[in-house]
Amino acid sequence: MKIALDAMGGDHAPDVVIEGAVMAARELGVEVVLVGDRARIQPLLARHDTAGLSLPIVHASQVVEMHEHTLAVKEKRDNSMTVGVRLVKDGGADAFVTAGNSGAGMAAALFGLGRIRVPGGVKIDRPALCTFYPAAPNPCILLDMGANADPQPENLLQFAMMGAVYAGRVMGIANPRIGIVSNGEEADKGTMLVRETYPLLQRSGLNFVGNVEGKDIGRGLADVIVTDGFTGNVIIKLSEGLFSFLVRHLRSELTRGGLNKLGLVLLIPAAVLALPGLALLSPALRRIVKRVDYAEYGAAPLLGVNGIVLIGHGRSNAKAIKNAVRAAARAVENDLVHAIEAGLKELPPSAAAAAGQTGPAPEPAA
Amino acid sequence: MKIALDAMGGDHAPDVVIEGAVMAARELGVEVVLVGDRARIQPLLARHDTAGLSLPIVHASQVVEMHEHTLAVKEKRDNSMTVGVRLVKDGGADAFVTAGNSGAGMAAALFGLGRIRVPGGVKIDRPALCTFYPAAPNPCILLDMGANADPQPENLLQFAMMGAVYAGRVMGIANPRIGIVSNGEEADKGTMLVRETYPLLQRSGLNFVGNVEGKDIGRGLADVIVTDGFTGNVIIKLSEGLFSFLVRHLRSELTRGGLNKLGLVLLIPAAVLALPGLALLSPALRRIVKRVDYAEYGAAPLLGVNGIVLIGHGRSNAKAIKNAVRAAARAVENDLVHAIEAGLKELPPSAAAAAGQTGPAPEPAA
Repeated sequence: MKIALDAMGGDHAPDVVIEGAVMAARELGVEVVLVGDRARIQPLLARHDTAGLSLPIVHASQVVEMHEHTLAVKEKRDNSMTVGVRLVKDGGADAFVTAGNSGAGMAAALFGLGRIRVPGGVKIDRPALCTFYPAAPNPCILLDMGANADPQPENLLQFAMMGAVYAGRVMGIANPRIGIVSNGEEADKGTMLVRETYPLLQRSGLNFVGNVEGKDIGRGLADVIVTDGFTGNVIIKLSEGLFSFLVRHLRSELTRGGLNKLGLVLLIPAAVLALPGLALLSPALRRIVKRVDYAEYGAAPLLGVNGIVLIGHGRSNAKAIKNAVRAAARAVENDLVHAIEAGLKELPPSAAAAAGQTGPAPEPAA
Repeated sequence: MKIALDAMGGDHAPDVVIEGAVMAARELGVEVVLVGDRARIQPLLARHDTAGLSLPIVHASQVVEMHEHTLAVKEKRDNSMTVGVRLVKDGGADAFVTAGNSGAGMAAALFGLGRIRVPGGVKIDRPALCTFYPAAPNPCILLDMGANADPQPENLLQFAMMGAVYAGRVMGIANPRIGIVSNGEEADKGTMLVRETYPLLQRSGLNFVGNVEGKDIGRGLADVIVTDGFTGNVIIKLSEGLFSFLVRHLRSELTRGGLNKLGLVLLIPAAVLALPGLALLSPALRRIVKRVDYAEYGAAPLLGVNGIVLIGHGRSNAKAIKNAVRAAARAVENDLVHAIEAGLKELPPSAAAAAGQTGPAPEPAA
C-alpha cells in the first residue's frame, strides 16, 4: 500500500512530517510517498534510520502556505497538495494525506479527483470534511467541519448519507444513528436550514434520531452528527479553545495557590501536544487524554471526492502524522470510495431522490 | 428598589427560587416581588426566616412550563412571566427576572414591553439575549444566545451596538472591542450572514476587531462578541456539555484507576451545581470554579426591550437566583434602558443608518 503524504503541510513541516512518516513506514509497514521539495526533504530524511523502509520522494516545487487563500492551489500549479492528489488520481498512490491548509487541501482534492457519482443514482454535490468527536463511550463522526459554510438542506442530507456509510462500512457500526446539530431538541427548533433538513432526514430511511443540542454532542446520542461547515468549525475550535482556556486558568491558579499538583495542569487534552510531561500523569489520566487527544485520530477523511484524501490538524506532531497515515491506510483497506458508492446505491429511493438523483425521479412513495 | 422574580420559573421552582429570593432580600437589601401561585409560594416562604425582609407575593394563576412552546405566554394569559413583565411595565417593579422557559420569557418581555426606539434614531428590530462568557482575564459579553436563529446583518449590527453600550455604560469598559464569531480570522471567512455583517461593523464607528474563531472565544480578544442565536446557543450549550463530559470521564477514570483525588472530579464548573462538596476543593480551585461558574453571573439581560428583563439558567440553584437578582439590581442602578437609548443616540450617523434609522436617512458619508 502506498500513502502519499504532503511533506510540506502543517505548522511543523517538513521536519515533524518526515519524522511522522518514518514512524508510519516502520510501525505500519506501508510505503509513504513524501511529496514536496526534494532538496529540503532529503537531508531531513537522512537524519533518520530508514533502512528497510520505503519512503520515496516525489518532487513538488511549490507550497501552499497555511495563511494562503484556498485558490492558491490553482495559482501554484506545482504545489505539494496538487501533486499528491494527482498521484492518487493516476494510481501512483492509494491515498493522500495533508496537515496543511485545510481549505486548500479540500480544493486540491475536489479539482483533482472530482466528486463521487453513482451511475443513475446520487451525485455528491459537495464533499464534506468529517472528524471524530470525542464522545462517550465512542467518538462520533461530526461533519461538515468547514468545507461548506452555507450548505443547502440537500447537502446536509448527503453528508448524513456519507457519514452513515462511513460509520457502517468503515467503523462497523450497525444501523448508525444520525443526528443534526440544533438549538433545541424539538423538531421546530433551528435555523431555516436545520428545519428544512429535518424532514429530509426523517424521510431518508436513515436511522435519524433528531436534533442534537450543543450540550449533547459529546454524549454519544448519535453515531453521526451533521451540521453546516460554519457551525462545525465553531464546534471543533471551541472545544479545543475550552481545553486550552482551562489549562491557562489551572496554571495561573495553581501558581497562585502554591499547589504542587503538576499533573493537574497536564490533564487537558488539546494542550497536551504543546506540553511536555505526559509521563507524569497517572495511568488513569493518560487514558482520558488519549481518548480525547486529536493526535490519536490523526486525520479525517474528506467524504464525497472520488479518491481517498485525509486532512490532518495543522498543529499535528509526529504522532499525529503517523496516525494520519494509519487512518489513510484503514480507509484504503476499507475501500472507502467504493464503500460510499455502494452505500449510496443501497439508499431507499426516497432518500436518493431528495439527495439529488441524477437519473429520472422515482415514483413518489405511497 | 423592587425586583420582580418569577417564582415558578426554572427546573427547581418554586422551592429553590424562593430560597434564592430570601437570600437576595437579606444580602442585597432589595425588595423581591415573588410572582406566581400564592398558594404554593406562601407555605414555602413560611419555612424561611423572613423577619425584616420585603418579599411580597403577586399572584399569577398559570405557569409556562419549561418544555412548552414560546407562544404559551399568549395562551396562558395569567402566567407568571406575563404578570411579572406587566409589573415592570406598570411601574410595580424596576426589573423582572426569570429562570423559566427562556423563549417564553423573551416573548413575554417583547409582547409586554416592546422594543427600544430612539425618537428620530435607531429602532431595535429584535432584542438579543446576552450572556457573560468566561474569558480570561475578564468575561466577555456574548450575544445573541438564542432569541434569533436566523437574524439579518442589520440585526447583528444592532446586537453589537447594544452590547457595546452595555459593556461601556454598565460594565465600565472604555471603548469596548467588538468581535464577530466566524470560522476563520480573515475578513472573507464566514457564512453569507457573517460576511455581510463584517463591512457594516467596519463602518459602524464601533471598535470592531474582526472575526473571532471558536478557539478564541474564551481568550479575551474582544469585550463583546456577536453571533446569530443558533450559533450562540450551540456555543453556550457545547461549553456546558464539554465540562460535563470531562467530569464524567474523570469520574469513571478515577474510579477505574483507583485514585483518591475526590477534589479532581469537582473542579469542573458547570457540573458544580449538581455536585456537592465544593468545600473540599483547594482555595485555588475554588477560585477557578467561581470564575467560570454561571451561577456567579446569575442571569443575563435581554437587550433591546423597553424595560429591564433578565433570563437565568433553567438549572439555577438558590445562589444563581440570588445572583440573578443582584444582576437585575445592577441593571436598574445603571438605568440600563436609558443607557442603551443614550448610547444609541451617540452612535455615528453611518452606524445608525446601517442599523435602520427611523427618521430621514442622513447624508451619505463623503
